[in-house]
Amino acid sequence: MPTSTSVRLAARPTGLPTDETWSVVAEATADLKPGEFLARVKQISLDPAMRGWLDDRPSYVPPVSLGSVMRAGTVAEVVESTHRRIPAGATVVGTFGVQEYAVSSGAGVEVCDPALGSASQYLGVLGITGLTAYFGLFKHGRPQAGDTVLVSAAAGAVGSVVGQLARISGCRVVGIAGGPDKCAYLVDTLGFDAAIDYHEGSVRKAIARECPAGVDVYFDNVGGEILDAALANLATGARVVICGAISQYNEAQRAPGPANYMSLLVRRATMTGFLYFDDAADFPIARQRIASWIAEGRVIAHETIVPGTVADFPRVFERLFTGEKLGKLILDITGTPA
Amino acid sequence: MPTSTSVRLAARPTGLPTDETWSVVAEATADLKPGEFLARVKQISLDPAMRGWLDDRPSYVPPVSLGSVMRAGTVAEVVESTHRRIPAGATVVGTFGVQEYAVSSGAGVEVCDPALGSASQYLGVLGITGLTAYFGLFKHGRPQAGDTVLVSAAAGAVGSVVGQLARISGCRVVGIAGGPDKCAYLVDTLGFDAAIDYHEGSVRKAIARECPAGVDVYFDNVGGEILDAALANLATGARVVICGAISQYNEAQRAPGPANYMSLLVRRATMTGFLYFDDAADFPIARQRIASWIAEGRVIAHETIVPGTVADFPRVFERLFTGEKLGKLILDITGTPA
Repeated sequence: MPTSTSVRLAARPTGLPTDETWSVVAEATADLKPGEFLARVKQISLDPAMRGWLDDRPSYVPPVSLGSVMRAGTVAEVVESTHRRIPAGATVVGTFGVQEYAVSSGAGVEVCDPALGSASQYLGVLGITGLTAYFGLFKHGRPQAGDTVLVSAAAGAVGSVVGQLARISGCRVVGIAGGPDKCAYLVDTLGFDAAIDYHEGSVRKAIARECPAGVDVYFDNVGGEILDAALANLATGARVVICGAISQYNEAQRAPGPANYMSLLVRRATMTGFLYFDDAADFPIARQRIASWIAEGRVIAHETIVPGTVADFPRVFERLFTGEKLGKLILDITGTPA
Repeated sequence: MPTSTSVRLAARPTGLPTDETWSVVAEATADLKPGEFLARVKQISLDPAMRGWLDDRPSYVPPVSLGSVMRAGTVAEVVESTHRRIPAGATVVGTFGVQEYAVSSGAGVEVCDPALGSASQYLGVLGITGLTAYFGLFKHGRPQAGDTVLVSAAAGAVGSVVGQLARISGCRVVGIAGGPDKCAYLVDTLGFDAAIDYHEGSVRKAIARECPAGVDVYFDNVGGEILDAALANLATGARVVICGAISQYNEAQRAPGPANYMSLLVRRATMTGFLYFDDAADFPIARQRIASWIAEGRVIAHETIVPGTVADFPRVFERLFTGEKLGKLILDITGTPA
């Protein structure tokens, strides 16, 4: 069996991960047991939620344990198989982690359909981030034509899809992003109705200006002050969808909660948290629809694909929080000598 | 027309109202115009939400303006009428304010049905607080038999009804209240399954102990640390109903929001604000049902009725926040010489 290099959790970080957080280890891959397959990882998904998995506290998934391979969504090619459903040569998507090779029983693994999308799209717009946008917006945001939909981290992998799905739904769409380039991208390329640069002045006043009838759906990826600014601008009956809190993930101290939460009462509004994988039964229809919209040019899913080796994971991971990316961030290790 | 004494807002308070907040004024009542009636106020409802009406900021109702009669729900007797639907002699419920006499066009006024309940019940369990409990729990909490329902300010006018309606719904009911007497009342008189005294130790740990399968419905009347403690103990799919934030109403500084709000994501939970009067179309059926449960002894609605004059309003109002009351707080001015 081949030697596999992996990135492991060496120490739990306080705030942003540092060099001490990670260790790079090369080991022989375990032999296959009956029913298992060996997969060679091609692309590794990088998502802000991964930061939460590094902390030793209960959440929707257990923390990554010290010394373990860092958990990550991946696309891989099956190189050897005794699995009855997944043959050698198949391209599969699964949580194989930050390593070159993985041995799997097939649990939680899906075979990619190349007619539907590329490998990287299976990690992005047809995978974790696209499905998060789809179910978060449609199931929990419940947009109706004519609604005003506001989304934060709007140039990110989730936010950019949320905005485009809301446009398809006949809504006015306002995105919040950092910097003039991202804001121009939202309006000029993705077709948002307006964009707010959170570096420029009061976000609260900007929301009031761009959403004069109030915000019917707020899709929150960031938490913190921007969540409070959105709560101050809700329309009656608004739906606030809690998808993430990027602004908080690297805070050493637990940040205060949204001080304006009583707007929920004044506006008879709802704030809902969700996790996309609860809707796994509906993934096929969601993927079909998103793929159709991509084919029609109605959904554009930008990817920032960084070529490298698994050892590059720590520095690519930092880009999730520095903003140096557009859309879905992926580490592509197919160039690594096998 | 009779002289009417009223309590008016003289100055906006910071924190708890003081003597400077109020002025007591006696004036002749205006003459009736065609279609109007004159009502003599009998009982005045005191509710924590009234504190919010004293602040000069936008909310679900406009602030009470300086110099105006303090807004309050009341039961009154019609003493003279040119109104086609509301005759002299009728007992009516309406927002007549803290004054002895009111002239009304009948807008927003309902005639009480003595077969359904007493005047004070029309302010409490069949009025603002009971209807708030009914719609907040049933429409937004959506309790199912077997659920665990947690309610704060559980010995109050809203919380005590919420708990009993949840018991009728087949739920395990846990109340949070201040002091051993109120806790004993919840369990021994109202039939709650358990009570938590928030003066005794960690509320968060107490909730974990009394709600071992997690909290399916949390009905929040208080905000602050207790809301955070409840958020830390949610079951998957929990519904958090935001009814009020008594702990915050008299804070001069805006308090931090619920730091544990990301539990909504981890637990796929919902936090919803509501106002009972949005469901006015369903008041008749709600009142019928509550009255039936009272008749069957399944709902007990304690009232703290304080006899006095309108000038006693300021000191009775304080009891909303000192905890010196059980159930619904009412100022009864029927003893005032006419």
